[in-house]
Amino acid sequence: MSKGKLNVAMIGSGFIAKVHSNAFRQVGHFFDIPYEVCCKVICGRDRAKLETAASRWGWSEVETDWQKIITRNDIDAVDIAVPNVLHSAIAIAAAEAGKIVLCEKPLASSLEEAEAMTKAVQHIPNMVWFNYRRIPAVVFAKQLISEGRIGQTFHYRALYLNQSGNDSSKGNTWRYKRSEAGMGAAGDLLSHSIDLALYLNGSITELSAMMHTFAPGRDVDDATLLLARFANGSIGTFEATRYGVGCQNRNTFEVNGSKGMLGFTLDDMNQLDFFDATEPANLQGSRCIAVTALAHPYGQNFWKPGHVLGYEHPFIATLGDFLNSIARQEPFHANFEDALAVQRILHAVERSATSRGWVSVEGQTA
Amino acid sequence: MSKGKLNVAMIGSGFIAKVHSNAFRQVGHFFDIPYEVCCKVICGRDRAKLETAASRWGWSEVETDWQKIITRNDIDAVDIAVPNVLHSAIAIAAAEAGKIVLCEKPLASSLEEAEAMTKAVQHIPNMVWFNYRRIPAVVFAKQLISEGRIGQTFHYRALYLNQSGNDSSKGNTWRYKRSEAGMGAAGDLLSHSIDLALYLNGSITELSAMMHTFAPGRDVDDATLLLARFANGSIGTFEATRYGVGCQNRNTFEVNGSKGMLGFTLDDMNQLDFFDATEPANLQGSRCIAVTALAHPYGQNFWKPGHVLGYEHPFIATLGDFLNSIARQEPFHANFEDALAVQRILHAVERSATSRGWVSVEGQTA
Amino acid sequence: MSKGKLNVAMIGSGFIAKVHSNAFRQVGHFFDIPYEVCCKVICGRDRAKLETAASRWGWSEVETDWQKIITRNDIDAVDIAVPNVLHSAIAIAAAEAGKIVLCEKPLASSLEEAEAMTKAVQHIPNMVWFNYRRIPAVVFAKQLISEGRIGQTFHYRALYLNQSGNDSSKGNTWRYKRSEAGMGAAGDLLSHSIDLALYLNGSITELSAMMHTFAPGRDVDDATLLLARFANGSIGTFEATRYGVGCQNRNTFEVNGSKGMLGFTLDDMNQLDFFDATEPANLQGSRCIAVTALAHPYGQNFWKPGHVLGYEHPFIATLGDFLNSIARQEPFHANFEDALAVQRILHAVERSATSRGWVSVEGQTA
Amino acid sequence: MSKGKLNVAMIGSGFIAKVHSNAFRQVGHFFDIPYEVCCKVICGRDRAKLETAASRWGWSEVETDWQKIITRNDIDAVDIAVPNVLHSAIAIAAAEAGKIVLCEKPLASSLEEAEAMTKAVQHIPNMVWFNYRRIPAVVFAKQLISEGRIGQTFHYRALYLNQSGNDSSKGNTWRYKRSEAGMGAAGDLLSHSIDLALYLNGSITELSAMMHTFAPGRDVDDATLLLARFANGSIGTFEATRYGVGCQNRNTFEVNGSKGMLGFTLDDMNQLDFFDATEPANLQGSRCIAVTALAHPYGQNFWKPGHVLGYEHPFIATLGDFLNSIARQEPFHANFEDALAVQRILHAVERSATSRGWVSVEGQTA
Repeated sequence: MSKGKLNVAMIGSGFIAKVHSNAFRQVGHFFDIPYEVCCKVICGRDRAKLETAASRWGWSEVETDWQKIITRNDIDAVDIAVPNVLHSAIAIAAAEAGKIVLCEKPLASSLEEAEAMTKAVQHIPNMVWFNYRRIPAVVFAKQLISEGRIGQTFHYRALYLNQSGNDSSKGNTWRYKRSEAGMGAAGDLLSHSIDLALYLNGSITELSAMMHTFAPGRDVDDATLLLARFANGSIGTFEATRYGVGCQNRNTFEVNGSKGMLGFTLDDMNQLDFFDATEPANLQGSRCIAVTALAHPYGQNFWKPGHVLGYEHPFIATLGDFLNSIARQEPFHANFEDALAVQRILHAVERSATSRGWVSVEGQTA
Repeated sequence: MSKGKLNVAMIGSGFIAKVHSNAFRQVGHFFDIPYEVCCKVICGRDRAKLETAASRWGWSEVETDWQKIITRNDIDAVDIAVPNVLHSAIAIAAAEAGKIVLCEKPLASSLEEAEAMTKAVQHIPNMVWFNYRRIPAVVFAKQLISEGRIGQTFHYRALYLNQSGNDSSKGNTWRYKRSEAGMGAAGDLLSHSIDLALYLNGSITELSAMMHTFAPGRDVDDATLLLARFANGSIGTFEATRYGVGCQNRNTFEVNGSKGMLGFTLDDMNQLDFFDATEPANLQGSRCIAVTALAHPYGQNFWKPGHVLGYEHPFIATLGDFLNSIARQEPFHANFEDALAVQRILHAVERSATSRGWVSVEGQTA
Repeated sequence: MSKGKLNVAMIGSGFIAKVHSNAFRQVGHFFDIPYEVCCKVICGRDRAKLETAASRWGWSEVETDWQKIITRNDIDAVDIAVPNVLHSAIAIAAAEAGKIVLCEKPLASSLEEAEAMTKAVQHIPNMVWFNYRRIPAVVFAKQLISEGRIGQTFHYRALYLNQSGNDSSKGNTWRYKRSEAGMGAAGDLLSHSIDLALYLNGSITELSAMMHTFAPGRDVDDATLLLARFANGSIGTFEATRYGVGCQNRNTFEVNGSKGMLGFTLDDMNQLDFFDATEPANLQGSRCIAVTALAHPYGQNFWKPGHVLGYEHPFIATLGDFLNSIARQEPFHANFEDALAVQRILHAVERSATSRGWVSVEGQTA
Repeated sequence: MSKGKLNVAMIGSGFIAKVHSNAFRQVGHFFDIPYEVCCKVICGRDRAKLETAASRWGWSEVETDWQKIITRNDIDAVDIAVPNVLHSAIAIAAAEAGKIVLCEKPLASSLEEAEAMTKAVQHIPNMVWFNYRRIPAVVFAKQLISEGRIGQTFHYRALYLNQSGNDSSKGNTWRYKRSEAGMGAAGDLLSHSIDLALYLNGSITELSAMMHTFAPGRDVDDATLLLARFANGSIGTFEATRYGVGCQNRNTFEVNGSKGMLGFTLDDMNQLDFFDATEPANLQGSRCIAVTALAHPYGQNFWKPGHVLGYEHPFIATLGDFLNSIARQEPFHANFEDALAVQRILHAVERSATSRGWVSVEGQTA
């Protein structure tokens, strides 16, 4: 049986476009996918940079005007890997042209954009690259929670710490400007933590947040902290910062429940810590599970038990699952709707930081 | 040279009285102290229990009425190891009788009591058993911060998690009742975290907190969470809970600064993690320092390098330092004043939890 | 400038052929390489399996007779990924036909084969897939040792533990048969540890070994242990086993020297532990370096600092370095000569296990 | 009921005498013991040092001639805490005088001495301070092994690494001289590892060892390494060194069995790692058990769950158990017989290191 071709356009040529390119190149090596993926065109502002990226990753053509991509009939899917403020125009145009839309997180630079985008893709296959959802250890955590292995949740606790803000060489890039990024650490880092929290622990009903900027003159948050109440009765703390000196990319969560505890840190992404409080008292202990067994999520897709995965594999798995969901006409998550839920939380965070009090997360349903 | 005798009365006969008794028995073995400590009398409600404790720990007499202790001329020091609500009456009476006063934390069951107590001991040697201040790793952390080894502080982050609240056998003890304990996790656990934060990172100017009770019918907090601003410009998160299933006694702090990071957890109390961001990029990493060298705090007092300390040693060190401070007429910390500062934070926490907004910590000076 | 084509034939279609295939697919994405790699033909015994592998990984043709590959003029390089006992015939034939030869480890199933193979490739670009040499943390360890950061070496200590032998489902595969594998844990696991030891700590002069088989009727070693003396005056212990229940793929080394210590474990392959004994006593501690900085080996090739690599990346790096070495006519390691040195140690191990005494490693030069 | 007095004489006034003194002072605080322990006299060569020790630890008298102690009728028990070469004369004399004999490890400076000593105490209560046997985590490991929780043992692996040998300030003390210590790292460090191995895994039948001295002119081993076969069919590796730079007191063991794995390190002495291979594949992981629960060994003796012990507590537990064993006329381990078994292994180690081959451990029974 011959597979249908899926012609892809990549909008963007920076770091994350490299990561997505790798996913398009690798997805067929590790997943049975219903399409022959064709890396058709890569689009950006700087032609020289595009030529290099195209040559390196095998994009057939380069293009500097994204609007030309939208009007081409030979493009099936548009992948958006550009600064946040540009997401909405491209996504909406692509959706209106009937393209499949893939978008880097955070979905948008404002709640309004996110809402418009979500509406636009309503009848179009769509996804957002919340890559950490497909780390095997994270999927396995979700599975254990769903099976009731930690019982009723009491506490959810997440950190996302990096040290980029303290590095003066980075302060002038788009991620540090409100006009291009919309938010700082909140959009860049906290959005990941919130997405995982909603995925693992359900919706947040209200929160109290603070946003803080350490660098003089910077107009986005360097650090955002919040306390939250979840619909399931548990309570949570979140901390996202670019001034977590000593941490390059420390993304962690812990969940305490009536029957046990789960813990994850991206530094050791192939592991999940599980404490089973139903064991006899003298045998209780946090066990470090190497989530690389055949029986684990994606355990059949990559290497062998005990052979670890790296940063790029969850992107490959995200793409593999998304392509299959399209062909099977099944729902896929995280989609724009899911990312809109994250954006609503970020919006509530801003409202709370301004009002200096608790706010409810309007419009969110459990 | 013969030493003066110090006749001690212990008020209390529970777990913490046992820990204090051990400190009185051991202090002379590991510290040069200016007194001959005499364990004179142990006082409590249950005579049989007292007899057992006296026989085990070598208290010469037992007594069931603490007020009789206060009026005895042969008692030099009174150590208070009873439920929180009883602290103030005993401490004030002892101070008025001119006794040296030692008091278990938290200082009191309310801010008003704490203020009265602090006033009462103004001219009397006094201390509060904030034992964690004298863990060698904690003292060493303080030293590194003071030396500027982590630079300007950005973030302070503390957890104190235990799982006692989820254990139905414990719910009926005094620690779970407002009338005896004043507060729940906040007084029991958070007070430790706050004391260490004030010690290590200076005063807190404002905070936003939530208090939550998981168990139906319980009238104290099972968990207290807060966000804080410190006078030095850093921001902090605190979480204290009795529903941290999976954690028996997890007391941690982390500090991120412009030049590095420090991390401590009570589970590994003989270690301090230090990340030095001034090292060359390729040699940076969090180093795990075994704080047992001769050059470390209390490195000459106990065993040899590489020979670890346990839970009781910081109590012994606290007592050793306190006794010397009396003889030398030097200030000692944590004293009632320090513990009052903690109580002010706890009070602000309650106000914030009620008002659902940020509150300033009145009366506190940096 | 257009690149020359490099037509590759893969001999083998099992797990390791998949890993090599990935390296051929990925090398150009992360390394500047002087060739256009063409995945020409994949060769094995089972045509159906080959078709699947070819389709998945993009091998243009399939072939079931490896000898036909050797005589083709359009094949530039032959990659050998078949059971050990087949390595020598293929490698020698390929070398005689002037092909570039890549060979999976261990080089051969006997010392005699290894010697003949090494002689055969003398004037041919050749390499052996000792992949762990190119883990960034391992390369960085080598760099620190070379810079004298741990001083004179005292101890070298290596473990390679897996639990495959205790899994009855695996006992019938070629790795457990002398006729196909030559050795058991020694060839499969210990060969890796020895290669790293020779790379990091120089040559071994004498050793005392034991080989042990736990499973009744099995004719290869399940576990091999040895003590060793190195030419640099240090002493070593090695343990390789398939009965290390609890360990899926635990490959570790530690080196103690006069100025410090290094430690590595494959489970945390993105980290290197470094203890600097030249620091002040109170600041000494084993620091865990995340070997993902731009300044680290291969730090510019893959992702960003703090973004971890997985099992396959060292294979990609091995291939990238090898292809560049060919074009630049520079030496490449590990080559057949290096693998022969490993084989000599394995041979000495067998002699020692038989003679139950120390043996010198003949023919090895420092 | 009044307790009988037990008058104790301490022979020695160095570090280990301090540790034993602490045990005598503390034992009654944590154990129900059948005697009133009286610290009667401390004996050594240097009167000034003795006076200090006596005053600090409450020994009633000082004495500089150990032989005078032996002839005193008012001494019930003699505790030997002097350099190894002095153990046998004192122990034999004390036994002949009918004293209870306690002796620091290793039992003696030679096998001959150890045999004579063991014979001498045959009808006398006796013990050797192999303190690590009474770390709760070690006792719990023994319990899990006995319950069959790790099944048939395959591998036993022990390290005892310190860095004292590399510290030139220590090279001139008695521990580095054959005439006073008998052996170097073997007697000092390896003896501990061997005792634990015999306790946990049963007797050793044969071994192959190497002893190495790094320091020029030193006449004892700086490092001793060995491979071993146990009577239960498992195989073992041992490494003891004073040149383990980076490790102050790293005493570890690991056991792999058909059903699981156990791991212990003295650096984290309150923890035991347990891997249960009978769990479902996706839930397997090494769990870190905090061995401080009420249900754990000595869980009722010291503090509360989650409150850690330090270096001295196993000494206290050793003494508590020993005193009870005397009163109950029950066997106690480790006694001289057990320590003699260790000495036989050390002797075999020396024979093997000399003969450069495997030797059987004569006279040892399983």
